[in-house]
Amino acid sequence: MYRSHNCGKLRSAHINQEVTLSGWVQKVRDKGFMIWVDIRDRYGITQLIFDEERTPADVFEKAKELGREFVIQVTGKVIERVSKNPNLATGDIEILVTNLTILNTANTPPFTIEDETDGGEDLRMKYRYLDIRRNPVKNSLLFRHKVAMQVRNYLSQEGFIEVETPYLIKSTPEGARDFVVPSRMNEGQFYALPQSPQTFKQLLMVGGMDKYFQLVKCFRDEDLRADRQPEFTQIDCEMAFVEQEDILNIFEGLTRNLLKEIHGLEVDTFPRMTYAEAMKKYGNDKPDIRFGMEFGELNEVAQHKDFKVFNEADLVVGIAVTGAAAYTRKEIDKLIDWVKRPQIGALGMVYVKCNEDGTYKSSVDKFYDQEDLAKWAEATQAKPGDLICVLSGVAHKVRAQLSALRMEMATRLGLRKSNEFAPLWVVDFPLLEWDEETERYHAMHHPFTSPKPEDFELIETNPGEVRANAYDLVLNGNEIGGGSIRIHDKELQSRMFSLLGFTPEQAQAQFGFLMNAFQYGAPPHGGLAFGFDRLVAILGGQETIRDFIAFPKNNAGRDVMIDAPASIDNEQLDELHIKLNL
Amino acid sequence: MYRSHNCGKLRSAHINQEVTLSGWVQKVRDKGFMIWVDIRDRYGITQLIFDEERTPADVFEKAKELGREFVIQVTGKVIERVSKNPNLATGDIEILVTNLTILNTANTPPFTIEDETDGGEDLRMKYRYLDIRRNPVKNSLLFRHKVAMQVRNYLSQEGFIEVETPYLIKSTPEGARDFVVPSRMNEGQFYALPQSPQTFKQLLMVGGMDKYFQLVKCFRDEDLRADRQPEFTQIDCEMAFVEQEDILNIFEGLTRNLLKEIHGLEVDTFPRMTYAEAMKKYGNDKPDIRFGMEFGELNEVAQHKDFKVFNEADLVVGIAVTGAAAYTRKEIDKLIDWVKRPQIGALGMVYVKCNEDGTYKSSVDKFYDQEDLAKWAEATQAKPGDLICVLSGVAHKVRAQLSALRMEMATRLGLRKSNEFAPLWVVDFPLLEWDEETERYHAMHHPFTSPKPEDFELIETNPGEVRANAYDLVLNGNEIGGGSIRIHDKELQSRMFSLLGFTPEQAQAQFGFLMNAFQYGAPPHGGLAFGFDRLVAILGGQETIRDFIAFPKNNAGRDVMIDAPASIDNEQLDELHIKLNL
Repeated sequence: MYRSHNCGKLRSAHINQEVTLSGWVQKVRDKGFMIWVDIRDRYGITQLIFDEERTPADVFEKAKELGREFVIQVTGKVIERVSKNPNLATGDIEILVTNLTILNTANTPPFTIEDETDGGEDLRMKYRYLDIRRNPVKNSLLFRHKVAMQVRNYLSQEGFIEVETPYLIKSTPEGARDFVVPSRMNEGQFYALPQSPQTFKQLLMVGGMDKYFQLVKCFRDEDLRADRQPEFTQIDCEMAFVEQEDILNIFEGLTRNLLKEIHGLEVDTFPRMTYAEAMKKYGNDKPDIRFGMEFGELNEVAQHKDFKVFNEADLVVGIAVTGAAAYTRKEIDKLIDWVKRPQIGALGMVYVKCNEDGTYKSSVDKFYDQEDLAKWAEATQAKPGDLICVLSGVAHKVRAQLSALRMEMATRLGLRKSNEFAPLWVVDFPLLEWDEETERYHAMHHPFTSPKPEDFELIETNPGEVRANAYDLVLNGNEIGGGSIRIHDKELQSRMFSLLGFTPEQAQAQFGFLMNAFQYGAPPHGGLAFGFDRLVAILGGQETIRDFIAFPKNNAGRDVMIDAPASIDNEQLDELHIKLNL
Repeated sequence: MYRSHNCGKLRSAHINQEVTLSGWVQKVRDKGFMIWVDIRDRYGITQLIFDEERTPADVFEKAKELGREFVIQVTGKVIERVSKNPNLATGDIEILVTNLTILNTANTPPFTIEDETDGGEDLRMKYRYLDIRRNPVKNSLLFRHKVAMQVRNYLSQEGFIEVETPYLIKSTPEGARDFVVPSRMNEGQFYALPQSPQTFKQLLMVGGMDKYFQLVKCFRDEDLRADRQPEFTQIDCEMAFVEQEDILNIFEGLTRNLLKEIHGLEVDTFPRMTYAEAMKKYGNDKPDIRFGMEFGELNEVAQHKDFKVFNEADLVVGIAVTGAAAYTRKEIDKLIDWVKRPQIGALGMVYVKCNEDGTYKSSVDKFYDQEDLAKWAEATQAKPGDLICVLSGVAHKVRAQLSALRMEMATRLGLRKSNEFAPLWVVDFPLLEWDEETERYHAMHHPFTSPKPEDFELIETNPGEVRANAYDLVLNGNEIGGGSIRIHDKELQSRMFSLLGFTPEQAQAQFGFLMNAFQYGAPPHGGLAFGFDRLVAILGGQETIRDFIAFPKNNAGRDVMIDAPASIDNEQLDELHIKLNL
């Protein structure tokens, strides 16, 4: 038996008991006649004391050998601590050690195992097993487990069945790039790793499973951006005999349950916003509504004056930034530089300072008088002390630019509070989006998403205007889930494919097995998938997902700890009927 | 809203309520003036009635169009059934339909959607989504979910944390063949899919996670035998600061909990048996102890007579088969043929009929008298009416042969009852096994398994005799789990590698990242993995795992439903820096 208690367990009530603890050496303070050692495990830290007077001489000597991260087992008596540590759960006691076993020595770790470490990102990735010993990472993993259990128990109670779908499936040319797996037994053929279990969950609905879910790894071989992983986890769900309303209700219930069970928060009914409204008000289909700063469209009040830039613009739109009227000229110039960065791409920014005395001072005073600017203030809901920032240009571009500025200003003003949760449904997404490159419509969600019945008639005449039964769940400016009601009608599906530019033969080749299945009685169905890594990170009040993944990959898709991917030997290649093509 | 109730819900208490149901047409009985339709969903079957007198004419006409597996929605009144069906949960009522919507038509399914179907294995695999509609498959998947939830909740309550380990890892030349994944971003390099998260779970122990588990997909590119899948699910577990006893206790607790929660069975403390004892008594390291038929070794009583075959044998061993003394000569000859089949490989079989009158009749009466045979009967615990079957030869071969015979006879005698559960720990596995081909020792479990301290001294002198801290959990003759205490001492690990024929450089190349991690303070640790597919099948009283997997692959590793694996296009190959080598 390696321990009688863990290192977070002992309290005053245990005083005078003999106990055995095992764990890692967090810290050694050697005062010559007295040595204090902090011993750490997953559950906490306990202070050990080795006293020249009271500890057996050989044990005392051995304690002198201890170094950081040694693995030890100690036996001793729980005693009251002279100077208590109120910051430590075990801070009222310490262990007067009578026996010490060094279970394993340790090299000096390459970075400190502390909440605030001196280790950089790369080093922490390489020694991830040491990084996991640190509270912030360890607690993130414990938190992830807690959320996963809560999700499973909630959905299970709601009658959902977790079904494991296969990982070795078939490559489809649509969507992102697949990771593929050469088959040894089927020469020249490849499996693909799933980008999502989309088709399988629809097949489960055809199979009558009624309510399906799965916490499942998905794979996308895309060029990695910051905070994106080639393998990621989804909460994947599908339901049969449902309408959009049923699905929103269930997953609103799940999210409310998580906020309650994880954070003790009671959240009101989630607001809903159409895609069109979200774009108009926030320039974004995943608005962060923890704060206002809604867009004020200024075409009516700012155009048809002498300011050519605005007159020629498709859209003139602004936001009021609280308290920023006090910005210096230099600060404003820096802000203008910020919006002109290539990542944002604005050509410039017009601003209006809303002075405390009710007057306005703008960068376009030449063209607009106080009365004009008052109308701008009204449209952007600006108050004295605010800075109105105005961008102009092609509508969809200028909205994206202003949205970026809005988020940036909110961050600077501390409005994106990690302990505040503002969920939002965005509904009525467009069914199709026009792709400039291929000059055809693409399915915005996927080709099985059903159009709104009332928009059916627009399908041939004005496909870009057709709205879908598609919805996203947005939390604090992040899309944490999205889904749709699927098409279950064969006729409609055919029209959809033709709209997307597929010949019937192409549709059959790519989606044949699902189309075939649909001939044997497909129920109305729909579903949703949550990005689990991000959901957990946001619930955990963090911006990045990496600490919530035990063994993440870097931006080149490498696991630097195990040094993967790596070359394999020729014999293995031969068996798989492939060779390198470098 | 597609339904007010599901198809398994309605009872007498609902009579006179108007309800809406959705589901599939299970059966239509058209009597001209009256049409009965069974509607089915995941939850059950409800009888619908369309009555020429009471049903609106257009609805009645539409009902005539219905075919098997059509998807329909009906509204109507719950009425009492004239002839009740006690075999159906909803058998007291039926729905007098007033409204019928055909949500989807269906082609005639290629096999009947009934508990006993006319569909063969291949057809059922190709149309798996239809197979899943059948109760036996559907219920197996529901059962799997129930077991998975129970496992997770139990382990979670015991303080285990589910941690997701990566799927894109590194290929290792040890063990079975890896599936590999070419990397697009890392030219000429490959990921491998994990055969198990073994190294990651050990790294989690180094990282202080203390108690880890995961229900996780694992991958092995082996030639498939019946009832083996290239991707399979494990309950993977690891614990730090534990000895073998701690691990056995925890997972005995889990298994007892499953038997209780799933089957309402209270099981006694699991018996334990050493590997040596299991081999001696049952010729098998995963004995089915639901029945006796223990081996009786006969060397002492059967050798040194005039029977040369036995005299020259390494081992003479028999079992007593209950009641089989009544076998005719022809039946016994067939049994002898059975043991001589190449899969079994015995050269012959000696038998002794234990007559009801206490006399014996054997196939070797020439060499043995009644007194001799009485000793055989004693050694095999044979009773009057039993047939003693005796095999001889090289010990390890003859044990395997007799074990196969024992299982066969138990099956014939109906002793392998699917609703009876006999768990057993097999402990003290050998650390090493000699490989004839490579003429060196291999790790029986894996190279990180620790030897028993008391056997340390044999490591250099008699390595084959060294026992490991390795254990298997056996249920009804199946190994459902296995694991070991790992080596955490660097010195011992080095000796182990050298024993296994690795140079230090080879050991570093193959297991470097784990060895490195061990330098930073590895705790004593150990673990276990359950084969989840098999565990669920056995708990479900089935012999084969296939119905407990939603979308299994066939014996050629193909998913015949989606037709995977498949060829991919050249552009994709180019991007991955590989070409075919056919």
